[in-house]
Amino acid sequence: MAAWTYDQVAQHNRRGDCYVILYEKVYDLTDFIPVHPGGPQIILKYAGKDATAIFDPIHAPGTIEKFLPNEKCKGEVDPSTIPEEVAREAENVLKEEEDKRKNLPHVSQCLNLQDFELVARKVLSPMAWAYYSSASDDQETYHENTSVFRRIWFRPRILRNVQHVDLSTTILGHKSSLPVYITATALGRLGHPDGEKNLTWAAAKEDVIQMFPTLSSCSFDEIIDARKDGKPIQFFQLYVNSDRNIVLEMVRKAEKVGIQALFITVDAPQLGRREKDMRMHFDDAGTNVQNETEDEVNRNEGAARAISSFIDPSLDWEVAEWIKSQTKIPVLLKGVQCWEDCVLAAEKGFAGVVLSNHGGRQLDFAPSGIEVLEECVDALRIRGLFPNPHFQIFVDGGIRRATDVLKAVCLGATAVGIGRPFIYAMSAYGAAGVSRAIQLLKEEMVMDMRLIGATSISQLNPSMLDLRAMHHHGQTIAPRTQSNVLQPHADGPDSSAAAHGAKSRL
Amino acid sequence: MAAWTYDQVAQHNRRGDCYVILYEKVYDLTDFIPVHPGGPQIILKYAGKDATAIFDPIHAPGTIEKFLPNEKCKGEVDPSTIPEEVAREAENVLKEEEDKRKNLPHVSQCLNLQDFELVARKVLSPMAWAYYSSASDDQETYHENTSVFRRIWFRPRILRNVQHVDLSTTILGHKSSLPVYITATALGRLGHPDGEKNLTWAAAKEDVIQMFPTLSSCSFDEIIDARKDGKPIQFFQLYVNSDRNIVLEMVRKAEKVGIQALFITVDAPQLGRREKDMRMHFDDAGTNVQNETEDEVNRNEGAARAISSFIDPSLDWEVAEWIKSQTKIPVLLKGVQCWEDCVLAAEKGFAGVVLSNHGGRQLDFAPSGIEVLEECVDALRIRGLFPNPHFQIFVDGGIRRATDVLKAVCLGATAVGIGRPFIYAMSAYGAAGVSRAIQLLKEEMVMDMRLIGATSISQLNPSMLDLRAMHHHGQTIAPRTQSNVLQPHADGPDSSAAAHGAKSRL
Amino acid sequence: MAAWTYDQVAQHNRRGDCYVILYEKVYDLTDFIPVHPGGPQIILKYAGKDATAIFDPIHAPGTIEKFLPNEKCKGEVDPSTIPEEVAREAENVLKEEEDKRKNLPHVSQCLNLQDFELVARKVLSPMAWAYYSSASDDQETYHENTSVFRRIWFRPRILRNVQHVDLSTTILGHKSSLPVYITATALGRLGHPDGEKNLTWAAAKEDVIQMFPTLSSCSFDEIIDARKDGKPIQFFQLYVNSDRNIVLEMVRKAEKVGIQALFITVDAPQLGRREKDMRMHFDDAGTNVQNETEDEVNRNEGAARAISSFIDPSLDWEVAEWIKSQTKIPVLLKGVQCWEDCVLAAEKGFAGVVLSNHGGRQLDFAPSGIEVLEECVDALRIRGLFPNPHFQIFVDGGIRRATDVLKAVCLGATAVGIGRPFIYAMSAYGAAGVSRAIQLLKEEMVMDMRLIGATSISQLNPSMLDLRAMHHHGQTIAPRTQSNVLQPHADGPDSSAAAHGAKSRL
Amino acid sequence: MAAWTYDQVAQHNRRGDCYVILYEKVYDLTDFIPVHPGGPQIILKYAGKDATAIFDPIHAPGTIEKFLPNEKCKGEVDPSTIPEEVAREAENVLKEEEDKRKNLPHVSQCLNLQDFELVARKVLSPMAWAYYSSASDDQETYHENTSVFRRIWFRPRILRNVQHVDLSTTILGHKSSLPVYITATALGRLGHPDGEKNLTWAAAKEDVIQMFPTLSSCSFDEIIDARKDGKPIQFFQLYVNSDRNIVLEMVRKAEKVGIQALFITVDAPQLGRREKDMRMHFDDAGTNVQNETEDEVNRNEGAARAISSFIDPSLDWEVAEWIKSQTKIPVLLKGVQCWEDCVLAAEKGFAGVVLSNHGGRQLDFAPSGIEVLEECVDALRIRGLFPNPHFQIFVDGGIRRATDVLKAVCLGATAVGIGRPFIYAMSAYGAAGVSRAIQLLKEEMVMDMRLIGATSISQLNPSMLDLRAMHHHGQTIAPRTQSNVLQPHADGPDSSAAAHGAKSRL
Repeated sequence: MAAWTYDQVAQHNRRGDCYVILYEKVYDLTDFIPVHPGGPQIILKYAGKDATAIFDPIHAPGTIEKFLPNEKCKGEVDPSTIPEEVAREAENVLKEEEDKRKNLPHVSQCLNLQDFELVARKVLSPMAWAYYSSASDDQETYHENTSVFRRIWFRPRILRNVQHVDLSTTILGHKSSLPVYITATALGRLGHPDGEKNLTWAAAKEDVIQMFPTLSSCSFDEIIDARKDGKPIQFFQLYVNSDRNIVLEMVRKAEKVGIQALFITVDAPQLGRREKDMRMHFDDAGTNVQNETEDEVNRNEGAARAISSFIDPSLDWEVAEWIKSQTKIPVLLKGVQCWEDCVLAAEKGFAGVVLSNHGGRQLDFAPSGIEVLEECVDALRIRGLFPNPHFQIFVDGGIRRATDVLKAVCLGATAVGIGRPFIYAMSAYGAAGVSRAIQLLKEEMVMDMRLIGATSISQLNPSMLDLRAMHHHGQTIAPRTQSNVLQPHADGPDSSAAAHGAKSRL
Repeated sequence: MAAWTYDQVAQHNRRGDCYVILYEKVYDLTDFIPVHPGGPQIILKYAGKDATAIFDPIHAPGTIEKFLPNEKCKGEVDPSTIPEEVAREAENVLKEEEDKRKNLPHVSQCLNLQDFELVARKVLSPMAWAYYSSASDDQETYHENTSVFRRIWFRPRILRNVQHVDLSTTILGHKSSLPVYITATALGRLGHPDGEKNLTWAAAKEDVIQMFPTLSSCSFDEIIDARKDGKPIQFFQLYVNSDRNIVLEMVRKAEKVGIQALFITVDAPQLGRREKDMRMHFDDAGTNVQNETEDEVNRNEGAARAISSFIDPSLDWEVAEWIKSQTKIPVLLKGVQCWEDCVLAAEKGFAGVVLSNHGGRQLDFAPSGIEVLEECVDALRIRGLFPNPHFQIFVDGGIRRATDVLKAVCLGATAVGIGRPFIYAMSAYGAAGVSRAIQLLKEEMVMDMRLIGATSISQLNPSMLDLRAMHHHGQTIAPRTQSNVLQPHADGPDSSAAAHGAKSRL
Repeated sequence: MAAWTYDQVAQHNRRGDCYVILYEKVYDLTDFIPVHPGGPQIILKYAGKDATAIFDPIHAPGTIEKFLPNEKCKGEVDPSTIPEEVAREAENVLKEEEDKRKNLPHVSQCLNLQDFELVARKVLSPMAWAYYSSASDDQETYHENTSVFRRIWFRPRILRNVQHVDLSTTILGHKSSLPVYITATALGRLGHPDGEKNLTWAAAKEDVIQMFPTLSSCSFDEIIDARKDGKPIQFFQLYVNSDRNIVLEMVRKAEKVGIQALFITVDAPQLGRREKDMRMHFDDAGTNVQNETEDEVNRNEGAARAISSFIDPSLDWEVAEWIKSQTKIPVLLKGVQCWEDCVLAAEKGFAGVVLSNHGGRQLDFAPSGIEVLEECVDALRIRGLFPNPHFQIFVDGGIRRATDVLKAVCLGATAVGIGRPFIYAMSAYGAAGVSRAIQLLKEEMVMDMRLIGATSISQLNPSMLDLRAMHHHGQTIAPRTQSNVLQPHADGPDSSAAAHGAKSRL
Repeated sequence: MAAWTYDQVAQHNRRGDCYVILYEKVYDLTDFIPVHPGGPQIILKYAGKDATAIFDPIHAPGTIEKFLPNEKCKGEVDPSTIPEEVAREAENVLKEEEDKRKNLPHVSQCLNLQDFELVARKVLSPMAWAYYSSASDDQETYHENTSVFRRIWFRPRILRNVQHVDLSTTILGHKSSLPVYITATALGRLGHPDGEKNLTWAAAKEDVIQMFPTLSSCSFDEIIDARKDGKPIQFFQLYVNSDRNIVLEMVRKAEKVGIQALFITVDAPQLGRREKDMRMHFDDAGTNVQNETEDEVNRNEGAARAISSFIDPSLDWEVAEWIKSQTKIPVLLKGVQCWEDCVLAAEKGFAGVVLSNHGGRQLDFAPSGIEVLEECVDALRIRGLFPNPHFQIFVDGGIRRATDVLKAVCLGATAVGIGRPFIYAMSAYGAAGVSRAIQLLKEEMVMDMRLIGATSISQLNPSMLDLRAMHHHGQTIAPRTQSNVLQPHADGPDSSAAAHGAKSRL
């Protein structure tokens, strides 16, 4: 079969006849349009065109082969037939990207985790920024996740010999250089070409554990293969598919490659509505959106929704226990949000829980993990279930400083998970950025341990904290979503009737 | 009688001889000036001119006939005599309006209820914006109505099978697709030519209940006639007239057309002073306001005051019970604000109450309905009056998200009323906007129910909430009314003595 | 003696030979410089010049005669000798003033008390603005005075017949049209040529009581003589002079002219340091301030300090009781700030107290009167001293709305005093402004009483309030004094080291 | 040996051959580079150049002699060989400095302690500003130190004879003119050429006590010698060196020169990471930072880290007690942060403690001293250890007003330490500024004592305070570190995805 010319492909640019170029191959997506998890809109936008750049970072290798029958591949496109202006624009995009990276501050100029976010915003595409930074509704929980730490204060002890500080700890039986692990986040290749592999490399270098997700944009195998000499220890975050065979298959695969723990996601029976992310799609879909039918538009709901088809909303305790019964790998629940469910998990023999609200991306006004931690430890202790080597508690969400880590560990957490900051570090600097971020945490933590008067993780305890203001939530500065939500309104009228009047009369 | 020329009418432009053109007819309003509920100023402004544009959206059809003796109609005006510049200006106004609407984002780009407000501000006239958005005094209660929800947090449950979520519920015996109804708001035609009918159409389409007010700007009949196949269910908000016969007449009419519940407004013995609204009138009244006598100006107090003449400040429990005795339609009290009155209402056999502060438009520092809900349920429960199928509790004010709805229902509300957001949706997009707004609420609510671990309304309960911070009110960010209140001060000096000094010396 | 020429006077322009023109007369102030309560600086600034414009508004008539020996008056100045440019500048100042007033909004456009402040800032001289608006230290108490009302919420009652609302009450046996009085404020002529007389006229018209101060800028007699037909009732605020004979003389005079109550100021043993006010003087003193010796400058401390010489810091309970023993006029204490002193005052037989912090002008972090009111009523009630017709409690500070008045009365106050808002109303519009301000309060209050469910003052009670958040103070938005405090720093560097660095390297 | 020419020195500008000019002498620093406490970077920047200007203010006299072997001094440089442009630039720097100082407001225009900070920012070099103003992490504790005082309110007493107010008190047996001392701060010559001697002079003049630190930039002897007639009383803040002989030597020296108390620093086993300070170094190090190896950069961590080499992290109770056993001078602990350690200190016979968090420069979220004070006094009182003439409690951190001083003394503190404000006053105006600052505090304090109803320090007690809101911390307005942290990002994108998108598409 002769190679296609770019112009030939361009003829197939309609809903009823829709070809798309991906990795220099031509695919007939006509039949796939209505079942595309990300909605028809985005495919139609690229009908007759090369969609590789937009497709690549959000689909793991093998996706095409997995979902499209072989015969839909119509052959290769002849690269020499790409029109000059198309090529030039692609080049410009690359150059712009490169220029952005060239002007970044040196990685060593990042002095705390927050710095990486500021740098990453310079580098990330609008779509990637929206996907990573978005949270649900008015982002109240997202902001609470960091704010709650501002309401917990230390009670430091003095005159203890703190020359030798040991940050290391044991997580589910595995050594970690500090009580922090890299938690699972999706679509790593939106931020950096090497995607989640960066996290693997940095975790190995810094001796921390990596948890990675079902919805990674590197393939499971790529992430596993990025290990060297059995490092790092890896955990796997399991989204439970409604097809139980697929679940079993994942469990078996995890066992085979030496995954050390399975974290069943229990706070996402449906993926959250993240409006920042959703708004991006109107941008991408261009100007013809006004002509779409309502149903089509409704399905066009951002990266988060696109990847949510594999999540089973019927997941319940019975299913979770069945999974646990199928493997010797420790099984934990990720996303517990009240003491009642924490006690249930302990009583049913799970190996632990992550107190988490999914980074503020699911239910707005879900509580922060650290606030739930207090009530969980109390409830477990009353029942003789804490402390308990067979039931470990983790917290994630909003951790930005070693002081945050210390607070969680003082309250009873074995370790904390960090997500976005590592993703931002990776987006800006690849594995070196993640490594630097972990080093910064270690450096802060050695100092903070000394200043609080502890030389080992085991010395941390609740008497080192003042929790009197912890429950005063709802006082974050950030107000309810107001302006900026609807893109065409960048010049929105200000909020007084008078000003409005003045304007409309001009 | 020959038709009038525009110039002839223009001669009658004085207080003692005042004609006005309305719908191409000429009326002698000389005697009506002192008794106009909206004050004399606005009539005098249009003396000798065509006032249709300003008159139409705030007077229901039939108003002229009802209040003016027949002989005050002096005949028709000949449209061909309208001076060109007058016609052109009218055209320009229409065109400007049309242009505004043309540039709106597509209704599907509105992703939450707040978005409709932002769009509506682009479309609404300054007068309409002021009327809809205004609240009493410094708007403390208005802001508290939304802020209070930021101080209520969830305690979500996990691992419940939440595949099938049913939002539907029963309100006073009537099925509703979700525990939300469209509450009564006045002057709908200020926002959209079809006025309250938009709400009727959308309520029917989305299977929710519409409550409409005595003070609608569509006529009672128009709203009733907008139903199709008996849909939607309608409730009627009753402002009690001091003429009891008029009250009885309204009740009879309500019975006849199938109104399913009467809500007596009990929080408005006098309509609130809404300064944003009041300031609008100085604008409209133009530059000669400095020459008016004090008394005249005092009566010129905005749209809210103009429509308040029909409200009886002597309304008391006896009257309310008398109304209840006159009909088989369930009678409820709208505007209850403390547990004592809630208990009284239950004991006296009313069918329920709405815990409401009238959208922050009446007494500033009146509590939010949701905060009162907690104490009401407690007080009723102690007395064996809750739960109680014959006494239902509703809440309105500040509801913008499905999470808000859930919080109220968890605390014991049967359903919540939403007002302004639907008015804004209607103003921007007509019935389609209201429909979209309800769909968005449903979409949010399905997700939120799943994330909180409930599949039906009956599963919602207080243990799903953390109320520890609820009573910390008075912490809204919005400060006391400061600048912008007095229109000529748009360039007000900044607040330091130093700056003031500097300025006045320049 | 022949009249002086302007040039002749101008020769006496040195510290050792200092003449000043006042009201077209020439005075030798050489000996008076070191003892001038307002400091030497301001006199030296006008050495050899006409100081009438700056002198007049802050000195009551008769001040010169009282403090300067007759022989210091050196004769009259011949007005025709005033140099043209001096006359022209004086004219310009007058014209500028007039222009400012011409562009004010009509008094009826002021819809609440806050509006008058905004208008007054347009009219007031920098010095007058600084004097009226200034408060002590970082103005924490000043802001708390209004903020505390934002933390007190209503519990409104419904379905009470509220057709007829009666705002009138009895204050120390005297009828008042509402539970509000005009409290004492100093230097009224800084704001308006008629000074405190405006307040007298408005009080009479609106049937409220006027309290006026020892430190008025109209004379005692002028204020008394401004009454008509015995109206208004007047109270007198007494600063206790260390010369007891002067005190007795004031008491006798008060008795003679029918003053109905004496309020001894007990919160000002020394007048506060008000920095905004103090900074003004550096301005007025001009550029040569760098050359002054330290001691001189230290005495140059703003209008507030200038008038404080007559206050006796040794005032104690014994003195206060002695004053009470000298007269039949009821004697009250103004400035009580905790329950202990309130109980003492009641036990010692004073006629009442004003819970006040002097408008935030004395001790920063003194509590608001309304917060103290709660503890005072509790303490009195326990001791059987409340309610008590012979001991009435008043509150002032921060009252801006009828809701504020209602809150104080619900908690047990007989009435509240209002100061600054009336001063601002007076500055902008004279007596008509004050009258309008009182009318606005009445209008708000009738509505608020209806909405809270009360028709008379006696029905107001603590069950109508929610005080749960009242004690959460210290959360005002206004941060500590930061920028703007030092006038030459208007372009202060922003707050990050980075920015600073960037700047200094440019 | 002949003098060097500037050009000759300039040849030795490499890591392997690095000469630097200091005070017109030439030093070979090649071997010293890797062990320089301030990191190699800053030396390399000045390789072959004159580093006197940067070296001088942060090294006490004698530093070179102490750390460099004699033979490293290679001779003198001939001043006449300095290239014209180098000389000119040096001159420009001096002139710029001088110009800045010329335009300062007169010292008498500073009306409160905050004013000095505003003035100092105009004068200080970016490096000095960063060093003085920096605090740890997100500066939460730094802001809390001032915020906490906003949550403590007074309960003032009235009608006490307050004519004669006596501010004086006794600190560890020594008379002080008010309960305030100058606390120890490092590197005084960064702010003013006379460095810490300014503080000595002002302390003597104002009759207050000076505490000075091990890490002063004037030498110990210079500070001691600045005394006149035995004034002021001096305390010494001891950083404990790991070489105990050095410690003993310091103690002996302190005894010999009449130091009256030793304050062992117990809150700084490691000096804090102060990012503002750290960022400065990237600036100074210039553009070649991208080429440095990671390790080198890591050591380049700001002025704070540079001086921390002499601090022993193994300091514990045993060592502290050993020091106490070695001398008759009273020994106190500076940096106690919870009641447990305060009780321990009392029980072990120390002469007192300073409740301090090191000005917010060490552990972020360490509590403010004033909040700890309450729990310490309670715990001591229960154990019969308070009040106690042999165990005195001090507080420092955030004191800016006399009201702050009063609050601490009311709660039980003997006196409070003030650091930064005096440093800023000194930087702007030398000793005269410090003197003015103390006078302002006295002036405020006399007034505040009168207004609170106390005439002597001994009358101050806890009943004069309202502490109900004190523990509501974590509500400071200042949000987490966000922008401005990374210098190249001055034009950082704003925070909405939309805005980002818009930008990157332009």
